[in-house]
Amino acid sequence: MGSLEAERTTVGWAARDPSGILSPYTFNLRNTGPDDVYIKVHYCGVCHSDLHQIKNDLGMSNYPMVPGHEVVGEVLEVGSDVTRFKVGEIVGAGLLVGCCKSCQACQSDIEQYCSKKIWSYNDVYIDGKPTQGGFAETMVVEQKFVVKIPEGLEPDQVAPLLCAGVTVYSPLAHFGLKNSGLRGGILGLGGVGHMGVKIAKAFGHHVTVISSSDKKKKEALEHLEADEYLVSSDATSMQGAADSLDYIIDTVPVGHPLEPYLSLLKIDGKLILMGVINTPLQFVSPMVMLGRKSITGSFVGSIKETEEMLEFWKEKGLSSMIEVVNIDYINNAFERLEKNDVRYRFVVDVKGSEFDH
Amino acid sequence: MGSLEAERTTVGWAARDPSGILSPYTFNLRNTGPDDVYIKVHYCGVCHSDLHQIKNDLGMSNYPMVPGHEVVGEVLEVGSDVTRFKVGEIVGAGLLVGCCKSCQACQSDIEQYCSKKIWSYNDVYIDGKPTQGGFAETMVVEQKFVVKIPEGLEPDQVAPLLCAGVTVYSPLAHFGLKNSGLRGGILGLGGVGHMGVKIAKAFGHHVTVISSSDKKKKEALEHLEADEYLVSSDATSMQGAADSLDYIIDTVPVGHPLEPYLSLLKIDGKLILMGVINTPLQFVSPMVMLGRKSITGSFVGSIKETEEMLEFWKEKGLSSMIEVVNIDYINNAFERLEKNDVRYRFVVDVKGSEFDH
Repeated sequence: MGSLEAERTTVGWAARDPSGILSPYTFNLRNTGPDDVYIKVHYCGVCHSDLHQIKNDLGMSNYPMVPGHEVVGEVLEVGSDVTRFKVGEIVGAGLLVGCCKSCQACQSDIEQYCSKKIWSYNDVYIDGKPTQGGFAETMVVEQKFVVKIPEGLEPDQVAPLLCAGVTVYSPLAHFGLKNSGLRGGILGLGGVGHMGVKIAKAFGHHVTVISSSDKKKKEALEHLEADEYLVSSDATSMQGAADSLDYIIDTVPVGHPLEPYLSLLKIDGKLILMGVINTPLQFVSPMVMLGRKSITGSFVGSIKETEEMLEFWKEKGLSSMIEVVNIDYINNAFERLEKNDVRYRFVVDVKGSEFDH
Repeated sequence: MGSLEAERTTVGWAARDPSGILSPYTFNLRNTGPDDVYIKVHYCGVCHSDLHQIKNDLGMSNYPMVPGHEVVGEVLEVGSDVTRFKVGEIVGAGLLVGCCKSCQACQSDIEQYCSKKIWSYNDVYIDGKPTQGGFAETMVVEQKFVVKIPEGLEPDQVAPLLCAGVTVYSPLAHFGLKNSGLRGGILGLGGVGHMGVKIAKAFGHHVTVISSSDKKKKEALEHLEADEYLVSSDATSMQGAADSLDYIIDTVPVGHPLEPYLSLLKIDGKLILMGVINTPLQFVSPMVMLGRKSITGSFVGSIKETEEMLEFWKEKGLSSMIEVVNIDYINNAFERLEKNDVRYRFVVDVKGSEFDH
């Protein structure tokens, strides 16, 4: 209800420099404004982009930085103009906490493409103060960026959906790739890739996991129930799969050749890039022209798409594959994530963790 | 009618080797089969890809080679199963003269993407004999690949539509870019680019011509009635035009950076490649991801789209800008085309030319 007292404090775990080591950090949170929702964090997923941010891989990091953008929590307080949420509800928050609300993207409910979007951490809020993420006991988020979570979903399971999940759901929905019977490829089997398999299978697609080695073959086929597994270095199998896929979700976060994957696409097929890669990617023009193929990409998803995806997730009875850890394990989790040693997403049990005050 | 006499001969101009010099050449034509249309060529356009073929730039040329694939002519004879055409009609033929008829592309009336398509020259027909193009007095073409030309169109004007015209019409139609009010960019003002301006303007688009220098500014704005002209090396203007275009038709036939043009696109904008370029093109993934932009391409258009485009052309009262020459000027024409010294398409007046017999 928009309290008038001084700003309150909260405790999170922050990176202090590009070593990326997180340690407890007490910081101020704004009071609950008319449009704000004050949230007690229960769970927060650990995304590969958090790793880039804490280590300043993109050269844009400011410290101290509390990462975390796959937040599930409980509403503690709502502002006077908040109509969508009530105290005690379980809600979510994701990668963004602000946008301009007037540009074409905002008007079209694709606020993730607003050029003035505000990231949930390592950004500056409209009050001029740094934003801080979900590895903290509490957060304040404008209601527009708070996500309704359907009743009955497990909150720890939901966390990875708020970034990884919607990151694959959004392009499939946008590019008309929801129909049953399509043939999809998932390139790379990390946090986003595993969501890709789950969601594509739930759409009724025939799903091929494409990987650089056969290390994940068993888990892809048996645990994730992918239909096929293709090793990109196996020229014969790659040749055999030529012109067979309607789309490929390319989750590889480092430079890689595109042509082997363009070859796998049918006429009008789409290669959908998900990895922020700052080294140039290459292709020759006949590879796209002669099959009217597209190289495109997508960036998370809107709040609207997130809520749509959560309803779909519930309806289909899906589950994430996660490893739940306490906050004092976060540095180990990042270290293991860097080595791709997680099946498939770490989720921090913030509520069950001890925070030093 | 399907005559039973021996194969007949015709005279064309053929390249004999990678020098690309054309000279008169007498060759056999098959008799009119049940599905064939025997055509007396009246006009044939000169396309940049003819230049690549006669000079073996793609390493796949066979000689002697009669190029030419923008053919307008008169029906001399039709096969017994031909229903769509009558003797005396003016018809067209383009880049393709055969396809498998059973694959997904053929079944979907986008036979230009059939992997077994047969090119109108420098290819092998189903009878095992080389195909030869439109710089010849006569051709025999299967009815499926013969284009109806609406009455009232000037045949010399129509010739460049059969490749250059449909090459820009097809992607605009396919990618949902026909609506009035869209903002389009045409990168490169050659034969295809000039068609791009004409067709995009006829759709009611706001058209920006983008070029490496200001040499064509006056003609783009005054003769072709483009709305704006952007010099790609002018950083200030390029910056000012950022995020402003729904699509760019990229006709540049040599390697070039893509990022300056991706920057010009709005969210969901499309960069449509038209140039067969065998050196790799480059971009960084955030350039497409953060605006859900697409890099795609297209290859001529179907017979169905060609006929649709001709109706549109007639309805809108459009005209090509061409330079009509006789066949004995063809080597000069290719030389000038190589230097981009043509406004904007050479068309050979085959009917009015002397052919040595």
